Amino acid sequence: MLGLREPEIYGRQTLATIEASLEAEAITLGVSLDFFQSNGEGALVDCIQATFGQKDGILINPGAYTHTSVALRDAIAAVGTPTVEVHLSNIHQREAFRHHSYIAAVAVGQICGFGADSYRLGLHALVKYLKDRHQVPADS
Amino acid sequence: MLGLREPEIYGRQTLATIEASLEAEAITLGVSLDFFQSNGEGALVDCIQATFGQKDGILINPGAYTHTSVALRDAIAAVGTPTVEVHLSNIHQREAFRHHSYIAAVAVGQICGFGADSYRLGLHALVKYLKDRHQVPADS
Amino acid sequence: MLGLREPEIYGRQTLATIEASLEAEAITLGVSLDFFQSNGEGALVDCIQATFGQKDGILINPGAYTHTSVALRDAIAAVGTPTVEVHLSNIHQREAFRHHSYIAAVAVGQICGFGADSYRLGLHALVKYLKDRHQVPADS
Amino acid sequence: MLGLREPEIYGRQTLATIEASLEAEAITLGVSLDFFQSNGEGALVDCIQATFGQKDGILINPGAYTHTSVALRDAIAAVGTPTVEVHLSNIHQREAFRHHSYIAAVAVGQICGFGADSYRLGLHALVKYLKDRHQVPADS
Amino acid sequence: MLGLREPEIYGRQTLATIEASLEAEAITLGVSLDFFQSNGEGALVDCIQATFGQKDGILINPGAYTHTSVALRDAIAAVGTPTVEVHLSNIHQREAFRHHSYIAAVAVGQICGFGADSYRLGLHALVKYLKDRHQVPADS
Amino acid sequence: MLGLREPEIYGRQTLATIEASLEAEAITLGVSLDFFQSNGEGALVDCIQATFGQKDGILINPGAYTHTSVALRDAIAAVGTPTVEVHLSNIHQREAFRHHSYIAAVAVGQICGFGADSYRLGLHALVKYLKDRHQVPADS
Amino acid sequence: MLGLREPEIYGRQTLATIEASLEAEAITLGVSLDFFQSNGEGALVDCIQATFGQKDGILINPGAYTHTSVALRDAIAAVGTPTVEVHLSNIHQREAFRHHSYIAAVAVGQICGFGADSYRLGLHALVKYLKDRHQVPADS
Amino acid sequence: MLGLREPEIYGRQTLATIEASLEAEAITLGVSLDFFQSNGEGALVDCIQATFGQKDGILINPGAYTHTSVALRDAIAAVGTPTVEVHLSNIHQREAFRHHSYIAAVAVGQICGFGADSYRLGLHALVKYLKDRHQVPADS
Amino acid sequence: MLGLREPEIYGRQTLATIEASLEAEAITLGVSLDFFQSNGEGALVDCIQATFGQKDGILINPGAYTHTSVALRDAIAAVGTPTVEVHLSNIHQREAFRHHSYIAAVAVGQICGFGADSYRLGLHALVKYLKDRHQVPADS
Amino acid sequence: MLGLREPEIYGRQTLATIEASLEAEAITLGVSLDFFQSNGEGALVDCIQATFGQKDGILINPGAYTHTSVALRDAIAAVGTPTVEVHLSNIHQREAFRHHSYIAAVAVGQICGFGADSYRLGLHALVKYLKDRHQVPADS
Amino acid sequence: MLGLREPEIYGRQTLATIEASLEAEAITLGVSLDFFQSNGEGALVDCIQATFGQKDGILINPGAYTHTSVALRDAIAAVGTPTVEVHLSNIHQREAFRHHSYIAAVAVGQICGFGADSYRLGLHALVKYLKDRHQVPADS
Amino acid sequence: MLGLREPEIYGRQTLATIEASLEAEAITLGVSLDFFQSNGEGALVDCIQATFGQKDGILINPGAYTHTSVALRDAIAAVGTPTVEVHLSNIHQREAFRHHSYIAAVAVGQICGFGADSYRLGLHALVKYLKDRHQVPADS
Repeated sequence: MLGLREPEIYGRQTLATIEASLEAEAITLGVSLDFFQSNGEGALVDCIQATFGQKDGILINPGAYTHTSVALRDAIAAVGTPTVEVHLSNIHQREAFRHHSYIAAVAVGQICGFGADSYRLGLHALVKYLKDRHQVPADS
Repeated sequence: MLGLREPEIYGRQTLATIEASLEAEAITLGVSLDFFQSNGEGALVDCIQATFGQKDGILINPGAYTHTSVALRDAIAAVGTPTVEVHLSNIHQREAFRHHSYIAAVAVGQICGFGADSYRLGLHALVKYLKDRHQVPADS
Repeated sequence: MLGLREPEIYGRQTLATIEASLEAEAITLGVSLDFFQSNGEGALVDCIQATFGQKDGILINPGAYTHTSVALRDAIAAVGTPTVEVHLSNIHQREAFRHHSYIAAVAVGQICGFGADSYRLGLHALVKYLKDRHQVPADS
Repeated sequence: MLGLREPEIYGRQTLATIEASLEAEAITLGVSLDFFQSNGEGALVDCIQATFGQKDGILINPGAYTHTSVALRDAIAAVGTPTVEVHLSNIHQREAFRHHSYIAAVAVGQICGFGADSYRLGLHALVKYLKDRHQVPADS
Repeated sequence: MLGLREPEIYGRQTLATIEASLEAEAITLGVSLDFFQSNGEGALVDCIQATFGQKDGILINPGAYTHTSVALRDAIAAVGTPTVEVHLSNIHQREAFRHHSYIAAVAVGQICGFGADSYRLGLHALVKYLKDRHQVPADS
Repeated sequence: MLGLREPEIYGRQTLATIEASLEAEAITLGVSLDFFQSNGEGALVDCIQATFGQKDGILINPGAYTHTSVALRDAIAAVGTPTVEVHLSNIHQREAFRHHSYIAAVAVGQICGFGADSYRLGLHALVKYLKDRHQVPADS
Repeated sequence: MLGLREPEIYGRQTLATIEASLEAEAITLGVSLDFFQSNGEGALVDCIQATFGQKDGILINPGAYTHTSVALRDAIAAVGTPTVEVHLSNIHQREAFRHHSYIAAVAVGQICGFGADSYRLGLHALVKYLKDRHQVPADS
Repeated sequence: MLGLREPEIYGRQTLATIEASLEAEAITLGVSLDFFQSNGEGALVDCIQATFGQKDGILINPGAYTHTSVALRDAIAAVGTPTVEVHLSNIHQREAFRHHSYIAAVAVGQICGFGADSYRLGLHALVKYLKDRHQVPADS
Repeated sequence: MLGLREPEIYGRQTLATIEASLEAEAITLGVSLDFFQSNGEGALVDCIQATFGQKDGILINPGAYTHTSVALRDAIAAVGTPTVEVHLSNIHQREAFRHHSYIAAVAVGQICGFGADSYRLGLHALVKYLKDRHQVPADS
Repeated sequence: MLGLREPEIYGRQTLATIEASLEAEAITLGVSLDFFQSNGEGALVDCIQATFGQKDGILINPGAYTHTSVALRDAIAAVGTPTVEVHLSNIHQREAFRHHSYIAAVAVGQICGFGADSYRLGLHALVKYLKDRHQVPADS
Repeated sequence: MLGLREPEIYGRQTLATIEASLEAEAITLGVSLDFFQSNGEGALVDCIQATFGQKDGILINPGAYTHTSVALRDAIAAVGTPTVEVHLSNIHQREAFRHHSYIAAVAVGQICGFGADSYRLGLHALVKYLKDRHQVPADS
Repeated sequence: MLGLREPEIYGRQTLATIEASLEAEAITLGVSLDFFQSNGEGALVDCIQATFGQKDGILINPGAYTHTSVALRDAIAAVGTPTVEVHLSNIHQREAFRHHSYIAAVAVGQICGFGADSYRLGLHALVKYLKDRHQVPADS
């Protein structure tokens, strides 16, 4: 539903625009991207499990499932694919039940509050994290 | 104390290295930076108040004060300078009392978990936010 | 599973009977209805999003998702379609975790405890709400 | 004080208007009504006790006592007169201390959020409930 | 409403029967009693205040106000008349909100769970307490 | 009961003395006062409602109802008469259940801990507030 | 340790004195008593279990175990012997952790705050309860 | 994802191995099994509802849904098929949010902590429960 | 007290019957058993400590101590003997204070809800666990 | 920062204006004042300690430290200088974490919500308190 | 069990070694010691009661009972023997339920975290406390 | 402020006296001491950081910062200098907010309740800890 309503919260960019921007950004960074979107918790879990041994990282905006889904958390922990969590809005300024994230505890890090730019920053953070991990062979 | 101890939590870069990197990044982005570091809550409040009408934005790592300082929060709210909050570690993976941030509720957004790269991402996020605000004259 | 078991809680009417009654009631009120039923949280979110610009209102019994689904809540808030929440049983007389509704905060109102009659009352409430909104052009 | 102030919360109809509407609705439904209004918790308890063996049902808007009065709850439980609880506003969208109702646990059901229409819906719900109870001689 | 309904909770004796029994018991104990009953919190506060310098003790069943009335508590504390709190039912076996008593903290003691016999026991406890206080002139 | 007992908490002045002092103070300030005292929550609500369009302000010591009465709070919010809340004792130094005030959230301000002088200060605060409001026509 | 220390809390009577008084009272009531005292939770459980089919009732002062012992509670529930709980002091006026009793939920009733007289009142309550149960053959 | 990763938590057996073992065990016990696995909450609810009148029992490992799904709980309660809940890991030794199970309250019993052996034990428990129920025709 | 009372909760088998069944089961499994039963928390701690270096495993039904005994927990953790916790009833369906187990966090696993069969399942679970541990020499 | 920003919360008067007004008011009251302002918690503690034996009273607006500083509280308790706590805004109408004051429990009283007038009222309250204390030589 | 297991938590000294060290230390300090050890809560209570009028002080390591035993607390409070509480481990670094001590509130002080040295420090603290009390005859 | 006021809580010794005693004690123990005292949280953090590589241990009385300062905690954790926490008073007997220590979780151990003697005991504990660490080269 992104871009159609509530621009005061989620900004004016549609998901399509965000995907196009990320594609462009990915070319600059020398990486390739696959996109997946679903309202179903199970479908998201399937998708995360499918990254096992196939993808280097996950950039995820878990939306409302951020606050309720132990299943997403367990899936990310199980596959072990490095994951960066992003949010369009600053979840710490909204209702109290949105302050807690089940995902953050199994993610590399969390970025929130910068609208569509959260995705771009998240992509940069993920790529940097993956590059560093290859160069520094896990000394701690 | 950054860079000297606990690299498994805070990474290996000293604050000096981080400042140098940020300076370089700032040149690329066409902005200039001032640095300030202190262990004193009052000194930090003084510094934030001094940005009033003098600076375009604040990039802050409130450290331990993140979780206890209503004074920092009130100072940021009072001056109204756009503020981006960054953390080296993923605060959501540490002790429960570190999950809550008094600062996040008055910041534009929050970035955590990417080590020294959190600063670089925060600078990008802040510069992007300030540019967008100038172009789009506050329609909501 | 409605009507087959636990009549002491949910009454004896099957969902089919309720739909037939609502159809008849709708004719009297001069409105038309579409029905949707699913056990999947994602499918319900899809359905709510599909009402955007297509339907005047939503009459929803969120069942067990009432108490756990931030996703349903966000979908209703996002599409902005006026929504009335109904429950067959009086949720305030059951286990404590059923007293809280994520949906109620984004609904026009809530009706619970009248068995199948909750649907009929909900339909009346929704139609009345929509008519009033057309006549009185939002003065507050 | 109804109808005089805060129409954005409680709607624009005075209590007199609501009573007149309910009277008209009652004629259609073939039932008769008595009205009682008081700011005193004790007076309300007296009134509820007076329904014992004299009235078939109670339609109550407990106002602020919804959230604090164990005495009203005990009175309703003691007389056993079927009771429907109504609220003008959607109590689940207001302060947290208004989300809990002492009355709901001893009422047939609860209706809230439809302004003055909550009373009309509540009357329909109550009459339907009483009719069904006469036809179906308590099999569960 | 005592004696008319819910005998499984409150026993079968009406308040009149209880008063008659207490009168008889009082004669045996060589004391005289005044009775007061009201559904109004304010009226009960008035009555408690009226004992100041006029009565030797209070035997009170605060009913539902046990759990909500700071006013009764303050009135008892203010007049300083020794007070014994009694309950027909065992309040610790009912809903959680009935386990806490605002009154108990300012009463001499509390007796609950013995039906109408709670009153008799309370009267004995109060008379004994008052006699002992006269004989032993407050040494601690 | 003021002035008769517990002077270590409530001071030694009777309510009559306080009223006399306030009358004298009112003459100095050029305002006139009406007094009302009751143990009944409903009677206090009636009195607050009666100020609607008739009085410029309310100076209230809600006593024990401070901590339990949503009804007083709603009445003050409904009539919109500027209200100053005063307490003889410092409620923040007493039992935990006295730290919270339902009234404070709808009052202009709160003054507590100065004994009978709390009333005098409250009157000054209220008169000052009303004068300022007339001079500065609501700019925010 | 009773009677030796802390008379301001527990009164001045030793346990021996209390037992003698209860014996005398028992003769008046036409019942016979067995006494048991122990600091061991297990020994108390043994004693309660030994009443099964052997004793008509239990008069118990669970002391500190009141607030921690699920074992005593389960033992009383298991044997089904009618039990009256007594306390020398008013447990509701002491530390918060003493306000809750695991025993009360499985006892006939609770008496507290009357010093040694709590035992006498408890004996009367128990005997009355047992007599009534024999006369009225369990109609609810 | 079972068997591929995190063997220190979930053991080394894949789901296929577990199913094969259970099939063998079922032959010994003289029962037949159907298997179902899905990441989707709705699909699991569908499957549970399909057991109504078709299956004698359910052996379920609800995974992450154990802690969040009221829908699974309601489905099990609605169909009334006897259900045994099993977990590979000891959920009481993991994060606090995993200690609570929505399913346990509607299951016959719960077995956790024995790795793949939890399934075997669960099957034995379920078969024994069903046999006993047939022999002893529900006397309590 | 097992087998004498409350069969609707604890089943009809006496502890003697359970012990006989376990002995028979133990022969089949090729293991030998010692039994110990006590109402004393200290005696149970003694018994657990006595297993140190003497026994291969503990099968324990901690009864009411499950929910209160840090001492049992510490004893099991101290001796390090593998322990399986069993309960006759499904503790998750009873009072809230019975949902938490101090023992589970230091046990291999927990089995509850299958009546006397919980013991048999627990014995199987324990024997299987001990055999696997011998074969697979602790690789994680 | 007072007077520069957020006048809708803190009013339009700068701290300088407030100090000037207080000076004038002090002359009327026949007392003299010293002013101190700092963002540093330690500096404030130093200042409070310096009042020991040197000043008759403290009029303090602890700002954000109201809600977090045990150090300020302990300093005030240690020096024993009578302290009046004032706030420009009504702290009971703001975020929940602002409702609690560590200072109030060791202050004579608290005044909040009257903008700059809170200081004037606080000065009056303090002077009155000090005068009364001199006249009435501490009888309770 | 001390000294046999878990040396990483409790250190390597057996209780015998600790007793020997304390004996030697006691000679230096000019005091004599009696030792008592038991797993039984009741036995510990007996021992504490036996110090009444017989011993000058108690040095206690309440082990697991620290966190659950109101009985130990009451025994210490009843006998009034000065008590110093010691722990081998730093209880504030372990599970949350070990942070609270029922004993600390009735002890002179608490020492934890120094392994066997906690006993030596505790003995010094106790002897020093007792000597000071004899010299300074209780002036506050 | 030590030694000047509140001797009933903090004892009669001034900080100077304590320092002198500690100096004397240090000579006996063969160690040397540096003293630092400040009311400023930042100054204390600076001081702790300055121990890095320069001091063998820290003996700290964090005063009010014990309960509020995550900054002190983080500083101690960062420098890794062994730290012993002492308190003059028994913090577990005072207000509830003083029962929790942010420092204890990163300290070797905690000593409280022995007045000035807490410092002496703390010094002994620290020196013993440092000596043991040198002799036993970290085997766990």
